[in-house]
Amino acid sequence: MKLVILRLGHRIHRDERVTTHVCLTARAFGCDGVIISGQPDEGVKRSVEDVVQRFGGKFFVEMKRDWTKVIKEWLESGGEVVHLTMYGLPLPEVIEEIRSSNRDKLIIVGSEKVPRKVYEMATWNVSVTNQPISEVAALAVFLDWLQQHREFYIEFENAKIKVIPSAREKKVMRLA
Amino acid sequence: MKLVILRLGHRIHRDERVTTHVCLTARAFGCDGVIISGQPDEGVKRSVEDVVQRFGGKFFVEMKRDWTKVIKEWLESGGEVVHLTMYGLPLPEVIEEIRSSNRDKLIIVGSEKVPRKVYEMATWNVSVTNQPISEVAALAVFLDWLQQHREFYIEFENAKIKVIPSAREKKVMRLA
Repeated sequence: MKLVILRLGHRIHRDERVTTHVCLTARAFGCDGVIISGQPDEGVKRSVEDVVQRFGGKFFVEMKRDWTKVIKEWLESGGEVVHLTMYGLPLPEVIEEIRSSNRDKLIIVGSEKVPRKVYEMATWNVSVTNQPISEVAALAVFLDWLQQHREFYIEFENAKIKVIPSAREKKVMRLA
Repeated sequence: MKLVILRLGHRIHRDERVTTHVCLTARAFGCDGVIISGQPDEGVKRSVEDVVQRFGGKFFVEMKRDWTKVIKEWLESGGEVVHLTMYGLPLPEVIEEIRSSNRDKLIIVGSEKVPRKVYEMATWNVSVTNQPISEVAALAVFLDWLQQHREFYIEFENAKIKVIPSAREKKVMRLA
């Protein structure tokens, strides 16, 4: 099952760090890549690709202006769309249904106001609490639930740096 | 059990949005408040307090320059300290031990480089994957695990706005 994030409404400067956090979280939790819609931002792309270079694995960052087209094509090719929003149905109520389908998932996270069309096009509108939180928090918890904690056991190929878990130190293994 | 977040190394402008996301996530996941160390930032405090005003509950945002003192006093009063870091021991390996103690928890999330002293003072250094992710993602997943999904069932007192979960709409109930 392919997992791709669609980051809506990215604005240069203002969203730079949060969008980077979205990308890094998506990568670490086993997604295939992120499509950023909004203002094109080579800076975000570069910092995420730098992490991929050093910590390994495959992960793409693409920028596409026309998010409607991205969603439409995803659905047409048989994939499903999960829109994370505080207005959606609670994660615990829908997770079984979402997990039970093996189709590719496009997971949408917005920044500023998300157009109504997204709510209509999504296969599921899902909330991680109905409180204002953070798209990064919502994404992390959703992916953890969807994949049942798989993120803790991923091995990233071709890593140059690997962290060795430690109770009290910073242990890093250099592989290249 | 009291749950308080200590946000280390906050810098005005650069960290404004990420620190706000840390605060909002902490609030929605049932924490008592956040202590921000670094540059004092009334803007973050105001936007979080605005959410508390509208969405209810009790949640404090304090700013304290001397984080060493915060940690020391927490430990002296019998509390425990969890430092979230990609270098720490994997969450699945330590969560039972952390859950088994009912003591108040101070949960530390850094921004830029975290001083070695924090690793030494913490009761636990815990990783949510050993990959670079986001302090917001790490905090959300940690709190979800620690409290076993309690965040989905919290009722916030004195809310003026309440979101009614919906499959396809934005439903908001105004209570005041």
